[in-house]
Amino acid sequence: MKRSYIREILDCINEDTISFAGGLPSSNNFPLKEIQEASKEVLKNEEALQYMSSRGLLALREQIALWYTKHLGFKTKASEILITTGSQQAFDMIGKTCIKEEVIVQEPSYIGALNAYKLLGLKLKGFKNISSLKNVLKQNNALYLMSTLQNPNTTSYNQKQKDECLLHLKESKSLLIEDDAYMFLRFDGKINIPISSFYEKSFHLGSFSKIIAPGLRVGWIRANESLLDKVIIVKEALDLHTSSLSQHIISSYLENNDIFAHLEKTKKDYKNKMEFMAFCLNKYIPSFHFNKPDGGMFIYGSFEQDSYLIAKKALEKNIAIVPASVFYYDNRQSKEARFNFSNANIQEIEKGIKIIASLL
Amino acid sequence: MKRSYIREILDCINEDTISFAGGLPSSNNFPLKEIQEASKEVLKNEEALQYMSSRGLLALREQIALWYTKHLGFKTKASEILITTGSQQAFDMIGKTCIKEEVIVQEPSYIGALNAYKLLGLKLKGFKNISSLKNVLKQNNALYLMSTLQNPNTTSYNQKQKDECLLHLKESKSLLIEDDAYMFLRFDGKINIPISSFYEKSFHLGSFSKIIAPGLRVGWIRANESLLDKVIIVKEALDLHTSSLSQHIISSYLENNDIFAHLEKTKKDYKNKMEFMAFCLNKYIPSFHFNKPDGGMFIYGSFEQDSYLIAKKALEKNIAIVPASVFYYDNRQSKEARFNFSNANIQEIEKGIKIIASLL
Repeated sequence: MKRSYIREILDCINEDTISFAGGLPSSNNFPLKEIQEASKEVLKNEEALQYMSSRGLLALREQIALWYTKHLGFKTKASEILITTGSQQAFDMIGKTCIKEEVIVQEPSYIGALNAYKLLGLKLKGFKNISSLKNVLKQNNALYLMSTLQNPNTTSYNQKQKDECLLHLKESKSLLIEDDAYMFLRFDGKINIPISSFYEKSFHLGSFSKIIAPGLRVGWIRANESLLDKVIIVKEALDLHTSSLSQHIISSYLENNDIFAHLEKTKKDYKNKMEFMAFCLNKYIPSFHFNKPDGGMFIYGSFEQDSYLIAKKALEKNIAIVPASVFYYDNRQSKEARFNFSNANIQEIEKGIKIIASLL
Repeated sequence: MKRSYIREILDCINEDTISFAGGLPSSNNFPLKEIQEASKEVLKNEEALQYMSSRGLLALREQIALWYTKHLGFKTKASEILITTGSQQAFDMIGKTCIKEEVIVQEPSYIGALNAYKLLGLKLKGFKNISSLKNVLKQNNALYLMSTLQNPNTTSYNQKQKDECLLHLKESKSLLIEDDAYMFLRFDGKINIPISSFYEKSFHLGSFSKIIAPGLRVGWIRANESLLDKVIIVKEALDLHTSSLSQHIISSYLENNDIFAHLEKTKKDYKNKMEFMAFCLNKYIPSFHFNKPDGGMFIYGSFEQDSYLIAKKALEKNIAIVPASVFYYDNRQSKEARFNFSNANIQEIEKGIKIIASLL
């Protein structure tokens, strides 16, 4: 197995690199003051530094459960939430315990999930559209997907597509792993109802990385108790539990702040950056075809040449983008590429895209 | 696979339970003020909340490498250190990448390591004494051990035993996984030289859980670069990287404080508690045979009856101890048991042991 292209880029970028590569939220948008306060508050007590239950902090699991019930129309108890060390850990844990030999993935898919499944020796098969899902989804298969603001291609399923997906799931009695890291990042403020809320045999994955801060490494799994019970055994063997301090900080932050007000500000900034990046792409690289995303942190589109070569040449000029071949389970050649717009500033966005344009 | 007995106990203990079960450091000994300061310092900068390299924070890896060179006589570069989400994660990562099918373990062994290996489907074989190691260690085997203050049995190998172990390793060209979570916790302040420092094909594992605070979930692996390169691929797929905030806090703490002075205080407290627990055991349960440990957080010894039954009865009376069968790779019946003395206070120690005595 090779190292992740994105992680390798993160290793080799330096202060001169303009990175459109990683899924880095903008540091400027972290609720830094509020986290400083939360940290001060929770560190009054030694509990934030002690071992804790593998399931995670009860107060935090209750807060997350309430989100489901209130915002997603998806009635949930704290006992149906398991805290993970980032969403990334969920792929490994679920793959280990609940996927037998094969997992069906979107084309393209999130590279972190693909890597986790590959590492477990699972066989991957892809599908492009929901309508082609019935051709690959066998009885008791596992299906991994993102139904909202998919990473990398930024699309969301509409109700008809979700209904069709649900039909195939029910017919095949397959396990659904629904990764919803971007559920709260739609520019229009709407929250899509996940497919999981209509399907019992499902894991629904969330993350604080994109809505508070990724360096805390806190995500979660929502599933019914009998499914969660299988996963928790593995959680213990992997890292005992997720950072107590991170969990206490997030819980205190959520108790004392309105995260949705914070997200409104973040999304406004992201939308501005997205619009500017779209403007620059249209102006300097008119041959790059894309649709503007409805939210999230990426623009995804297609060059007229192999994007891997373009990405390599760009990296030599200290500009990082991600060629789509790394997002395909079979690493097929592709002209598509993903541009992150949340991390760089306006000046860097224009400069970076001009340099890429000069390489074409 | 069953859940870990210890983790299940942690789940079900309540505020009335006197726990001698987990390896919980005493919360009173956490350097709380210093961590408050470190947290305040590092949270001036958004970097502590952002994604980072999978290898871990360079400054922290440099600080750890310096410890090796200075205190362990084991010349080490930052590139030979990989930060892990607790030591626990190291077992999984190394097992996945570097152990083919079998791992040789001490009898008894640390339960967290056993669980991680079992979860990977690895075959386990045990050895009691170094002299019996040659009978089980095959060519290119993997050997997992703790050479200092072994958990659970608290013994340390002397130089002769280490030399013999080294001989078997060299003859069999086996991989050594040396878990040294208690290396800085000898009451006499001496630091044992690890076997790894004389053997290239080795992973040496350390942890901040017992010397700063476990809730931060930060440990490390020390190995040569070619061995580390194999492991880092897996680290990415498991959780991308360990909490940035935890790493920054520890690094800042180490820069501004003398951790060895802190440890002197902790160990003095632990030694007092150990002496008191030993006194209580001798007074109230004279049939429990044990040697006083040279450091660490446990007293290990043997009852005259099956310890699993005693532990179960004790738990009904709200006293938690760990019966040794969980520390044996084959879960054999045992009269041995582990008592943690770092977590409970003096009054609880006496009360708990009196109650256990009343059950016998």
